[in-house]
Amino acid sequence: MTRYALTLEFDGATFFGLQRQDHGPSVQQAVEEAAHAITGEQVTLHSAGRTDSGVHALGMVSHLDIEKSFEPFRLMEGLNAKLRPDPVAVIACEVKPDDWHARFSCTGRAYEYRICNRRAPLTLDRGKAWQVSRHLDADAMHEAAQALVGRHDFTTFRSAHCQAASPDKTLDRLDVRREGEWVIVEAAARSFLHHQVRSMVGCLALVGQGQWRVQQVAEALEARDRQALGYNAPPDGLYFIKAKYPD
Amino acid sequence: MTRYALTLEFDGATFFGLQRQDHGPSVQQAVEEAAHAITGEQVTLHSAGRTDSGVHALGMVSHLDIEKSFEPFRLMEGLNAKLRPDPVAVIACEVKPDDWHARFSCTGRAYEYRICNRRAPLTLDRGKAWQVSRHLDADAMHEAAQALVGRHDFTTFRSAHCQAASPDKTLDRLDVRREGEWVIVEAAARSFLHHQVRSMVGCLALVGQGQWRVQQVAEALEARDRQALGYNAPPDGLYFIKAKYPD
Repeated sequence: MTRYALTLEFDGATFFGLQRQDHGPSVQQAVEEAAHAITGEQVTLHSAGRTDSGVHALGMVSHLDIEKSFEPFRLMEGLNAKLRPDPVAVIACEVKPDDWHARFSCTGRAYEYRICNRRAPLTLDRGKAWQVSRHLDADAMHEAAQALVGRHDFTTFRSAHCQAASPDKTLDRLDVRREGEWVIVEAAARSFLHHQVRSMVGCLALVGQGQWRVQQVAEALEARDRQALGYNAPPDGLYFIKAKYPD
Repeated sequence: MTRYALTLEFDGATFFGLQRQDHGPSVQQAVEEAAHAITGEQVTLHSAGRTDSGVHALGMVSHLDIEKSFEPFRLMEGLNAKLRPDPVAVIACEVKPDDWHARFSCTGRAYEYRICNRRAPLTLDRGKAWQVSRHLDADAMHEAAQALVGRHDFTTFRSAHCQAASPDKTLDRLDVRREGEWVIVEAAARSFLHHQVRSMVGCLALVGQGQWRVQQVAEALEARDRQALGYNAPPDGLYFIKAKYPD
């Protein structure tokens, strides 16, 4: 048995999320079926993050165990051939020790949220960004975001379906910057609650539009109440960027 | 009658090109129908470039004449509302004098060609770039490209269906650069022949992969023969970026 770590890129628009679902296609099912087609083995994909329907990945890290031995490059090529035409690609593949785990060994996750801040509807970026018509003050958003950095009870920013044992998380970084008509939010933490990034971005966008004062984000956090949430941003703009592991 | 200049962004994948076609949807038809829905008038869209099926635009410039008077911002908003769900958006709109013409007044066109240079198939960028598996030497491509800059007979790089009176064109700029796994080609000229950018990029990619020597691009140009063309790059990676006009 060999454990292979896969770095995955995918367009979340056509999937019902990363994890296997009874009601529609998932990234997990696509990769497991591709692996089965190559190996004849029933494999299970484990991943650093559990992204929702519509959420994309540029660098999701996953692993699977295979009895047959493969040169990692050959396995990657074979998986990519079988994954067509699904919009999932294996962009890196390497052998890992048996006690390495894509989810449990992961010590850091990074997400990016892309807002296209303009009046005109999206064309080339449709499904791949959140279009916000009203002007966003990215500096005010960044200032408000800093109240969320650190260890907090993130109940306000947590989905009702979140399965985490505790609402306490440590947010390492939440940076907001403008690039032309784009506003980019970068978030990094050891782990996130379900909907946490989208919920934080939704509230920051209210600040950016002047509907919330900067201080209201801190107040929403302190309320520890989902009812205090201003807005949950759509999945379209969210990208899983990177998973970090100890060397 | 007022003449309005429109800056258009569109995803070319779902259109049979910019110009009206009998056999399928076009950007021109989409915009003309949106304008008709607002004004009740039969309008004709004139554009700086005539992009093919699958070719995208970030800044196509077009114009149309309308009898009714509109505040440009309102016209833009109205067109965008009517254009939904077509992947075309009006990103700028302004009033122009009657003797200003989107095509005939245009003194410069700029295109960008995006190559994703990696083994893995495209996911998020599918239909929006050309994926080339073999490593490309962007420096060699840039060097080869310089032989095409200047005034030349571009017969080799011209489609059999090109309607231009002469194959002589002046290419102002053809720059190739690498950005991570991307190779970007920028082309600028007063005007281009049909398929000229895609034909030039196709040959440069042969140089990049080491299948052609740098000097072979100059030799293909000198041959003045379509048979000397190495490869016509697919439309997916081509973007009309900008149209220039005298102040």
